[in-house]
Amino acid sequence: MKNKKISIITGVAGTIGSNLAKYLIKKNHQVYGFDNLILGSLKNIYDLKKNKNFKFFKVDVSNESHLQKINLKNIKVDYLWLLAANSDIRAGIKDYKVDLQNTFMTTLASLNFFKKKLKKNSKIIFSSSSAVYGNYKNKFNEKEKKLVPISNYGENKLLSELYIKRFCIFNKLKFLIFRFPNVVGKPFTHGVIFDLANKLKKNKILHVLGDGSQKKPYVHVEELIKCMFFLSIKKNDKHNTYLLGPNDNGVEVKEIAKNIKLLFKSNKKIKFGIKKIGWTGDVPIYSYNTSRLQSSGFSFKNSSLEAVKKAIREKYLS
Amino acid sequence: MKNKKISIITGVAGTIGSNLAKYLIKKNHQVYGFDNLILGSLKNIYDLKKNKNFKFFKVDVSNESHLQKINLKNIKVDYLWLLAANSDIRAGIKDYKVDLQNTFMTTLASLNFFKKKLKKNSKIIFSSSSAVYGNYKNKFNEKEKKLVPISNYGENKLLSELYIKRFCIFNKLKFLIFRFPNVVGKPFTHGVIFDLANKLKKNKILHVLGDGSQKKPYVHVEELIKCMFFLSIKKNDKHNTYLLGPNDNGVEVKEIAKNIKLLFKSNKKIKFGIKKIGWTGDVPIYSYNTSRLQSSGFSFKNSSLEAVKKAIREKYLS
Repeated sequence: MKNKKISIITGVAGTIGSNLAKYLIKKNHQVYGFDNLILGSLKNIYDLKKNKNFKFFKVDVSNESHLQKINLKNIKVDYLWLLAANSDIRAGIKDYKVDLQNTFMTTLASLNFFKKKLKKNSKIIFSSSSAVYGNYKNKFNEKEKKLVPISNYGENKLLSELYIKRFCIFNKLKFLIFRFPNVVGKPFTHGVIFDLANKLKKNKILHVLGDGSQKKPYVHVEELIKCMFFLSIKKNDKHNTYLLGPNDNGVEVKEIAKNIKLLFKSNKKIKFGIKKIGWTGDVPIYSYNTSRLQSSGFSFKNSSLEAVKKAIREKYLS
Repeated sequence: MKNKKISIITGVAGTIGSNLAKYLIKKNHQVYGFDNLILGSLKNIYDLKKNKNFKFFKVDVSNESHLQKINLKNIKVDYLWLLAANSDIRAGIKDYKVDLQNTFMTTLASLNFFKKKLKKNSKIIFSSSSAVYGNYKNKFNEKEKKLVPISNYGENKLLSELYIKRFCIFNKLKFLIFRFPNVVGKPFTHGVIFDLANKLKKNKILHVLGDGSQKKPYVHVEELIKCMFFLSIKKNDKHNTYLLGPNDNGVEVKEIAKNIKLLFKSNKKIKFGIKKIGWTGDVPIYSYNTSRLQSSGFSFKNSSLEAVKKAIREKYLS
């Protein structure tokens, strides 16, 4: 088809990648998906298996020689979605090489490899994170330059952002950097709802990491994808970095635990920790200044609490 | 001895590392030197072999498991000099992994490994480069934040700077970043004097890369070391980034070629290229705003031309 766009997604078998692939195919994209299937899973892209507009490659995109073995023929790419990354913040606290390898090296190798496949006006889109801000006291905003992440997860998202930025300026390429808050929804691979729901099923008491006062914004993956797509097709965008999230102050972890208990119709006791943080490297309380996003023409319809509740229902039914 | 300071130098067998080791030993330091001996060479540290204040470890500092095998006993480090890096800009243009591995990964691994050996008030000192500025139009200055390197060499020096900065802020460590211009002097391992002198000896015509109009500041390694040491012992320094170089507009490559011919008493013809740059990734013309360095109390006594001439004499005699 003449108007078919071509998208490459790295990390296609994760929560965001698999939802994005399905959404893009509906929007008439031909999608080439890559994943090493370590954190991602084949079952997340099972429905796409026979779709002629989807092609999957099991490959570690941080490994250039593995990439070189792939036959992509002469495809010319409109959108390069760089989602392949470590998503386990705690694993990266223990060993700095986890995020270095799975986030930074993955991004570098993908950029350098796929560069020659890009059309002249293609866009490179990177999934960054609120974690780049560290313990930043004010509402997070895109203009702040003094960022000191407190986790290797955040550090390697930031290193990747900076590398992409200079890479794209130098090579005259368009790019978008999206900083996500907590993302919830199907397929669940990790995160607070996944953890708490699993604990509730298994244990007699629901142990919550931290004192429950941690308060963060949440987005549901379905609405996140809509937002990413909306921004990706904007023409002559003067900004390249966006905070994606609802215009609220977030939801407390104790509220999430309470809602999980409620929806799971559980009588089990909740027991909170004593620390303000869930684990070392966790930023316990933050919120987004969403004015740049809103002036772009997109607003999240679901509040953080609504996103969380929707995700809990999905987790309950799954 | 009570007042003996302990220094670790990575890349100790290179031009700067070997001169620094000798200088620090004279200043009553106990020096632990590391080098993988790929770009560096044992002969550069030969005189230090039997010095009881010097201990050498042949190791690739980008490899954590190699580092872990080293027995450093319970040393507590005052100064961590991070000099191990790729110095071949052209090799890094061909393959982005060269600087990534030998500059960035080396810096990361050293920082993460040696962190636990540092005294409370120790200093981490990183050898950065003018290459972080890319094709920056004005005189280079330390305040500029919008840096777009045009080589992987510069990109990985910049990535390392940014990583060190956040690493040190997060871990409450002191650090200094020195951006060097062209460094000349013994032992010669690479660079314009090394290249031109060798070509002059071997070939009938002295072929110069580029049209000879490339104009850059030069420092002699001996004076550079003095400057580095001076800044390293400054107390309560409010700055952490310095451009190290003389207060002039540099020397043209054609002037260097002329001086080499003169000192080598050669009648061979010089043939210039047609391009303004020596090679892709080369920044042909730049100069330093040295006001921060001068207000620190240090000024280079040798001009760029004097530094070049001194180095040519050494190359001629060696």
